Amino acid sequence: MIIDCHGHYTTAPKGLQAWRDNQTAALKSGAPAAKGTVTISDDEIRDSLENAQLKLQRERGTDVTIFSPRASAMAHHIGDATTSLHWTQHCNDLIHRVCTLYPENFVAVCQLPQTPKDPLANCVAELERCVNGMGFIGCNLNPDPSGGYWGAPPLTDKYWYPFYEKMVELDVPAMVHVSASCNANFHTTGSHYINADTTAFMQFLTSDLFKDFPKLRFVIPHGGGAVPYHWGRYRGLADMLKQPSLDGHVMKNVWFDTCVYHQPGIDLLFEVIDLDNILFGSEMVGAVRGIDPETGHYFDDTKRYIDALDLTPAQRHQIYEGNARRVYPRLDAQLKERGL
Amino acid sequence: MIIDCHGHYTTAPKGLQAWRDNQTAALKSGAPAAKGTVTISDDEIRDSLENAQLKLQRERGTDVTIFSPRASAMAHHIGDATTSLHWTQHCNDLIHRVCTLYPENFVAVCQLPQTPKDPLANCVAELERCVNGMGFIGCNLNPDPSGGYWGAPPLTDKYWYPFYEKMVELDVPAMVHVSASCNANFHTTGSHYINADTTAFMQFLTSDLFKDFPKLRFVIPHGGGAVPYHWGRYRGLADMLKQPSLDGHVMKNVWFDTCVYHQPGIDLLFEVIDLDNILFGSEMVGAVRGIDPETGHYFDDTKRYIDALDLTPAQRHQIYEGNARRVYPRLDAQLKERGL
Repeated sequence: MIIDCHGHYTTAPKGLQAWRDNQTAALKSGAPAAKGTVTISDDEIRDSLENAQLKLQRERGTDVTIFSPRASAMAHHIGDATTSLHWTQHCNDLIHRVCTLYPENFVAVCQLPQTPKDPLANCVAELERCVNGMGFIGCNLNPDPSGGYWGAPPLTDKYWYPFYEKMVELDVPAMVHVSASCNANFHTTGSHYINADTTAFMQFLTSDLFKDFPKLRFVIPHGGGAVPYHWGRYRGLADMLKQPSLDGHVMKNVWFDTCVYHQPGIDLLFEVIDLDNILFGSEMVGAVRGIDPETGHYFDDTKRYIDALDLTPAQRHQIYEGNARRVYPRLDAQLKERGL
Repeated sequence: MIIDCHGHYTTAPKGLQAWRDNQTAALKSGAPAAKGTVTISDDEIRDSLENAQLKLQRERGTDVTIFSPRASAMAHHIGDATTSLHWTQHCNDLIHRVCTLYPENFVAVCQLPQTPKDPLANCVAELERCVNGMGFIGCNLNPDPSGGYWGAPPLTDKYWYPFYEKMVELDVPAMVHVSASCNANFHTTGSHYINADTTAFMQFLTSDLFKDFPKLRFVIPHGGGAVPYHWGRYRGLADMLKQPSLDGHVMKNVWFDTCVYHQPGIDLLFEVIDLDNILFGSEMVGAVRGIDPETGHYFDDTKRYIDALDLTPAQRHQIYEGNARRVYPRLDAQLKERGL
């Protein structure tokens, strides 16, 4: 079985954005916040997936995608706590509908109703609603809900602890994933995403977070940002800062996905990062949708790069399935229930 | 000849920091700004280098270091335009003294008196003072003078144009280099530096800056941040954003150094980036000062990684000397004057 740990619903039917547009218009006009309803039919959902994610799953030979709302649209900096909560619940409910329609193809990961400043009580409640109520297996945690101004405390700050307690209690991991940048310095998918990955890793490296939460698990997407390319730098910094070595510390709690869109990058990832810490992911349909003129294949068909590696069947199984089952025990349980 | 394009005076004698401490104390107390003098003897300068940069040059077999003030200490967010100007001029004058004492070992690159908000007139004047008055060959340009809050306009904004006009007029490149982070989210050398490199590259990719300034040249340090590792992502984004291909566009005006502290990272850099766009650099004595237990050698002895590559003598010459002479024509001219 091939589990893709990183897919967003970037192709959601227009009804979702229409609801969001109404919400932001109401915000501007000062109208009272109303949750209302998102009008999308099951057929629209099917249409939105059949020629996109499902088609690509079939073509590329992958089985299950760990699926979450469009990351760039989370936009936690818009409005207030109620704005974020209403929008998040609609997005998560839609993911639940996808996973109910296609239980063999998608498992759900939720967005969180974060804001730049508020405490995380709403996030705790929404995680519980999604995991206990709708079978979600994880969440996406935004380390910069201000959208490129980096106003929240580092992920290692006690601000986040109530949420981590819930993650550990529910035994679900978080993918560290920012949303759109509203800072003109950062291109959302070109620099903000990658920077956030690198930033989170360095926060973990310099902290004792995993002493406080030995069972907390994070997936750092986009191949770990800049980290594998600068692995010597991080090993050296850990040493200079008198932190434990990376393999005995951060890498007990952190995994990187394979969203790196060329063969040399994947080669490097597998050369420096322990196989135990790599999860197959493609982020399709995502940041880079074109065909690489150098290969004739989609940039984001990351399975091709992995298939080109010299891995044993056991190693291949680990990357495509085994590690994901370990990081997402609720996925493992669901698959076992289905006899897989 | 082996030219190291990236060295900072991280070992400056205590008198420099003492001056800075006085300046910041005066700022706090509201005392009037005074430039005053930095008290450092020539012997103190010699001592600060003989057992550090000069020793490492000899041990590693490199010849000339392109040398600039300590990057993390630029701290453009402290005080106002006068604060930044006084501090910058002292730092640059000290670099000039180093290069006068050791003309065979160091050539000078200046810090700039940036601030988070002011126009760049002081920077234009300081660049002119350093280049025309003291033989400097380039500058370090900070894309985030706010120190981790990213409040300045992107490097492609017209805000920067008066400075670029002076760079082109003087025919000097800039290394894109942030300073210390005062945002708790970013570790200075672990994430802020690397993020800034990635950010600047993406700003260049999405703009027409080099149409306006075809002769403008930037060195992006630390191996180009995350860019080579995600080279497929950037090629794909250029395509999606309908920008020209990277080799026909950004890479006509941008170079990466080799400050990547392990062999697999250097291997990747040389695999994906054209040799024309790579400059040898080590950033010694810099961010990572220890010995890699995996190799028994200094992490930042980047010459070892390059020497391990399968390069022809012509290619080696290009990386160690030829490219630097092209990017820094004033270095080339100075070397030729010395008959080199």
